[in-house]
Amino acid sequence: MIKVDLSGISTFLDSADPDYAAAAQAHRVLLDGSGAGGEFTGWLELPRRTIKNELKSILSAAAKIKSRSKALVVIGIGGSYLGAKAAVDMLGKTDNSEGCKIYFVGSGLSVDYLNDIITELGDDDFDVNVISKSGTTLEPALAFRIFRGLLERKYGKAAKKHIFATTDNERGVLKKMADEEGWDCFVVPDDVGGRYSVLSAVGLLPMAVSGIDISEVLGSASEYLSELASPGPSNPAWQYAAGRQKLYGLGYSTELLAYYEPSFRFMAEWWKQLFGESEGKNGIGIFPASLEYTADLHSMGQFVQDGPRFLMETVLQFEKANSEFKIPFALGDRDGLNYLAGRDLADVNRTAAAAVKSAHILGGVPNIEILVPRRDAAGFGELVVFFQFACAVSAYMSGVNPFDQPGVEAYKKSMFRMLGKPSDK
Amino acid sequence: MIKVDLSGISTFLDSADPDYAAAAQAHRVLLDGSGAGGEFTGWLELPRRTIKNELKSILSAAAKIKSRSKALVVIGIGGSYLGAKAAVDMLGKTDNSEGCKIYFVGSGLSVDYLNDIITELGDDDFDVNVISKSGTTLEPALAFRIFRGLLERKYGKAAKKHIFATTDNERGVLKKMADEEGWDCFVVPDDVGGRYSVLSAVGLLPMAVSGIDISEVLGSASEYLSELASPGPSNPAWQYAAGRQKLYGLGYSTELLAYYEPSFRFMAEWWKQLFGESEGKNGIGIFPASLEYTADLHSMGQFVQDGPRFLMETVLQFEKANSEFKIPFALGDRDGLNYLAGRDLADVNRTAAAAVKSAHILGGVPNIEILVPRRDAAGFGELVVFFQFACAVSAYMSGVNPFDQPGVEAYKKSMFRMLGKPSDK
Repeated sequence: MIKVDLSGISTFLDSADPDYAAAAQAHRVLLDGSGAGGEFTGWLELPRRTIKNELKSILSAAAKIKSRSKALVVIGIGGSYLGAKAAVDMLGKTDNSEGCKIYFVGSGLSVDYLNDIITELGDDDFDVNVISKSGTTLEPALAFRIFRGLLERKYGKAAKKHIFATTDNERGVLKKMADEEGWDCFVVPDDVGGRYSVLSAVGLLPMAVSGIDISEVLGSASEYLSELASPGPSNPAWQYAAGRQKLYGLGYSTELLAYYEPSFRFMAEWWKQLFGESEGKNGIGIFPASLEYTADLHSMGQFVQDGPRFLMETVLQFEKANSEFKIPFALGDRDGLNYLAGRDLADVNRTAAAAVKSAHILGGVPNIEILVPRRDAAGFGELVVFFQFACAVSAYMSGVNPFDQPGVEAYKKSMFRMLGKPSDK
Repeated sequence: MIKVDLSGISTFLDSADPDYAAAAQAHRVLLDGSGAGGEFTGWLELPRRTIKNELKSILSAAAKIKSRSKALVVIGIGGSYLGAKAAVDMLGKTDNSEGCKIYFVGSGLSVDYLNDIITELGDDDFDVNVISKSGTTLEPALAFRIFRGLLERKYGKAAKKHIFATTDNERGVLKKMADEEGWDCFVVPDDVGGRYSVLSAVGLLPMAVSGIDISEVLGSASEYLSELASPGPSNPAWQYAAGRQKLYGLGYSTELLAYYEPSFRFMAEWWKQLFGESEGKNGIGIFPASLEYTADLHSMGQFVQDGPRFLMETVLQFEKANSEFKIPFALGDRDGLNYLAGRDLADVNRTAAAAVKSAHILGGVPNIEILVPRRDAAGFGELVVFFQFACAVSAYMSGVNPFDQPGVEAYKKSMFRMLGKPSDK
């Protein structure tokens, strides 16, 4: 299971430990639902609930899509897309031999991007999974109108069988359309906000279609949630939450999530949403940024080593690689690398990580390590609930509601006004 | 040509203008080579020099590769890969109908990533372009040893014809190997640092192989450099450099580069290296981060709108999209979007951008806009020299050497020690 290593922050602290008393209080409030936004803590039981209620129908829809289509077009924005995108990228190449290609649209307004996807799709058979609680968010609503049109031109009256709507169980424009047209529906739970929803149908249907073993994801997430529910300073979510809040109090205002696997890039984007949107409010919050190592040691590495000292670094490590590659021996050794011949590249990567840790600590950057057993479905499930739990604890520790996002409305209001949206829509 | 709009910072300034006197001084020092690192300002004439000296042989090598191979494996890290990767992503889908697929390796140590690329490559014919001034940087040197082995197994003695080395003109391990083996060579110029080298063979050979019109890139870059050489407050590079330095002085310590085209993602990574590595030293520097809009308005948007007020936002806009898509009319208007029917999606995107600008300024985030005519080869050429010029001016304004990166050595030293590298290698 996931472990946290705080050895790299101790020299930066003014006292022996992070503030576990505050973590205990946040933990209590989170679990008894008495904190701000307590009505949105359904994600604490989401894996178990999904296994019981929707897993079977998600698997069956995924099987149908995989058997008849080459691609699934997923329409969603924010929490309705980042989790699935993160999972598909993180696990795709290893698991999806029998899966469909997944295209993500409706997460922006770029016309060139849209046209590129339509071109790539070509004449392939495809299904659409539209994900929106209300159906009124502009970007996915526009994309859905466009892809509905493409489906109708391609399949005529049978188009409706190629549409899967993940939406509110009762209300909203999208639910109403789905009921009238007879589209298959999945539920966006009422008590789970967008950025906490990846282990509902929101994330799971695209993941299953891509070939990811979602039963494994849910099983490991559920099991790990039971661990995280135990209070105490050995709780990894407490360690991470309390460690970063301690550093924030000392003036480390920006957190770098650094990872060594390129396939983790969108998981870091998901992490940014989770923490940035949960904590960044009321004029406070740790600024979340991400770096891909070792690549970015040759770009942002200079800044991390020698720039202003407001950075803390959280390093995500998979303890075992999924494959191996022995460094070959070369006759003559003209490139001078024979001292590494016969070693597994993964070992060299691990050594590089240890070297980076020591160099950055010496440079004045506190270091937190998150150790995940493997980059697989179980690891993904653990990562999701680990970060969600730690984020909620951390946000409560800093005194904000982890589950609202009042600032997101500002640009929408301004945009709808400028676009001339009728007031009754 | 590129324009800068500073209207979104004026309400945040304590005086009428950014400090153009300091920009003038930085400009002078940059152009006469008298500043710190003045021996690394060869990039100021790089487009013209490349057109004169190497363009023809780059085009000829690219034509050879395209005619016989399905893929080019590019081996490099940091400045030896980010520029080409940025260009291929930004322009690839529109221009590369006749180009090869480009794989980037040697920019990290992930064994799974390496094995994924080897699997994807399969039995396809391929060439290798190894890019390293010295040949001793660990990540690309290891990858090159591995792919050299693959080429030798595939092509036997003819393997050497599939290797193109972009390296120092005289010295270094890689140059020595290239001379002994008879590999085709291109030059990493002595007077241009890695992050300023994309308009040399370093970036241009991969770009040309991907199908990008590099003559157009170089022509527009060269022309725009002449514009940028004219001093004065109407110089767009001055405006950008002086605007962001002014904001930095007022406590805005983090710059968000926001863009509306998903294909710009790696151009933002290139920008992060350019500015982060040039400015982040001696304990100072603006922290560079990037956001993809509108997607990230639904993730980091909350933080930008309501979090701590140390963010400035620089928005990159292409004035014209490369394609269009008219929003369809729908009978019944059940999704309520007919008020947009018939409008081009690109117009909606532009309106969204204007709405975001106004919402963020109201929320306390100063806004700089960079307007690029089009997302094409000419636009890429202009963007490269615009950012490079502005970065050098900005770094000189803040009193640091824009062209060194002393902090990058720290992790390397520590890593080589831990790996047990013999001291003579």
